[in-house]
Amino acid sequence: MATAALLACDWGTTNLRAWTLDAAGGVVAEREFPFGVSRLGPGEAAVRFAQDVRPRLGAERLPAILCGMVGSNLGWTPAPYADCPVNLSDLASHLVQPPGAADVRIIPGVRTRGFNGQGDVMRGEETQAFGWLAAQPERAQGRHLICHPGTHTKWMVVEDGRLTSFVTAMTGELFAVLGTHSVLRSDVPPDDLAAFDLGVAAAGDGGGLAARLFTTRARMVGQGALPESTSSYLSGLLIGADVAATPGLLGMGEFDTLSLLGDAHLCGLYDRALKARGQSAEIFDGEAAAVAGLFALYQMGQRT
Amino acid sequence: MATAALLACDWGTTNLRAWTLDAAGGVVAEREFPFGVSRLGPGEAAVRFAQDVRPRLGAERLPAILCGMVGSNLGWTPAPYADCPVNLSDLASHLVQPPGAADVRIIPGVRTRGFNGQGDVMRGEETQAFGWLAAQPERAQGRHLICHPGTHTKWMVVEDGRLTSFVTAMTGELFAVLGTHSVLRSDVPPDDLAAFDLGVAAAGDGGGLAARLFTTRARMVGQGALPESTSSYLSGLLIGADVAATPGLLGMGEFDTLSLLGDAHLCGLYDRALKARGQSAEIFDGEAAAVAGLFALYQMGQRT
Repeated sequence: MATAALLACDWGTTNLRAWTLDAAGGVVAEREFPFGVSRLGPGEAAVRFAQDVRPRLGAERLPAILCGMVGSNLGWTPAPYADCPVNLSDLASHLVQPPGAADVRIIPGVRTRGFNGQGDVMRGEETQAFGWLAAQPERAQGRHLICHPGTHTKWMVVEDGRLTSFVTAMTGELFAVLGTHSVLRSDVPPDDLAAFDLGVAAAGDGGGLAARLFTTRARMVGQGALPESTSSYLSGLLIGADVAATPGLLGMGEFDTLSLLGDAHLCGLYDRALKARGQSAEIFDGEAAAVAGLFALYQMGQRT
Repeated sequence: MATAALLACDWGTTNLRAWTLDAAGGVVAEREFPFGVSRLGPGEAAVRFAQDVRPRLGAERLPAILCGMVGSNLGWTPAPYADCPVNLSDLASHLVQPPGAADVRIIPGVRTRGFNGQGDVMRGEETQAFGWLAAQPERAQGRHLICHPGTHTKWMVVEDGRLTSFVTAMTGELFAVLGTHSVLRSDVPPDDLAAFDLGVAAAGDGGGLAARLFTTRARMVGQGALPESTSSYLSGLLIGADVAATPGLLGMGEFDTLSLLGDAHLCGLYDRALKARGQSAEIFDGEAAAVAGLFALYQMGQRT
């Protein structure tokens, strides 16, 4: 077995995922922990890291690099946002060392002015974007659009190796709160692909979403659609509206490539919605990208 | 005091509002009751009506006309939707008598094919639209757009005296569920008009709503906006997106008039958002329109 040389963590809102990596960035071991920053009390991050994460991975003495919400006010220590445009070296120069933890570095989140000047922020997805780039050096040139679907879907623009802008769509959170707390709520999981496709079609150009959403109910009450199809239709409608409307907010013209990066199931749904609109995307595994990004940022941080 | 000749009720999901009217349609007395149809068990509507509503208004022997969700599956007795286009006489010919209540009539809701063929439905707002029309006979000609803001905002088209189409936007419900259950939640009431105006501006053309919504949070996290302004900004964003995008879904050209019909405060917010876009609307009281519509439909029902 390869020797672990680095402890790399994606420490998010609900979970912490940790890997030990060898000197070439290969995964030696991995663990998941249920203590995302939303579940931690003040000062608890440092304790959990030292007493749970390090021992469980046999990584008591390894240097460590962390990304995600651990760098927010709720996390270990605040890592102020780096501003777009930002490349790998820029981001590595902003790594933050938590007080009293000389061998730990936190990757800052990234901030952009936003499509309408109200700003936009992320923590964690930037690391996956740089991992995506590190794994494909040929994409250091050109204009690339990356969609990272989730609770807060991030659409990121990578131009000539720099993350130049991004926009967040609350697609997953809209699905969760509407499917749980609104007149569109349903207990049936969204596994009806025909209803999903109807939802994608109903999304149209994505405009008038508040009205398009109501068709989820109206088609059932007025047109006899089955209640069991509600969550699938809603999922298709929200994802369809996202792929139809969000990239346009970035104000960019054409892209050389369109990639979906993240959870395989969610990427598959986004891909299905894109295909219905005549677009195609490549799908990349988000976890592999996180590992590659953490490793690349650690290496770059050693050099600067 | 005028003699009561009719008991008129707007019986909705959460409340029942009842008026006794004189022979000319003037209000003699009014009461509000907390038993909307969502709070009633099976068979309870008939009992509540006979034992609470009638006695409290001294209306034991009056003919009665009811509109709203009382005609749904959850209400007293189902009153099947009338299909657009529909005029006052069409709607009156579809009044439904609940079993065993010879002097009671329920006004059916209205159904339309919808902007995308998925259909749309309403129960109650159609009565206010015909009340709006009854109070302004000069509007029996021309094309008029009426916006009835609320949990489910209804945009209705009245052409030459007929309700020809409408569309529902879940604007109020989105505000409620996002303001309570999402990362945009806030305990501060939406009373900051400057933040409301910023939200209206951030709505743009209403497209990409899932992304525009996230600016509610991003402006706070990344740009230093005050958390106290969150609900006002969110309100402006949702109402701004509604007025910017929903009328276009109706696929209609120009209208002779644009009216806001309903709750005075909500109509005022919609009017503010419309003005910010260079549009003006007349504001009408929804309760007066409900009374006028109930009376007009009762009278027309007597004739048919």
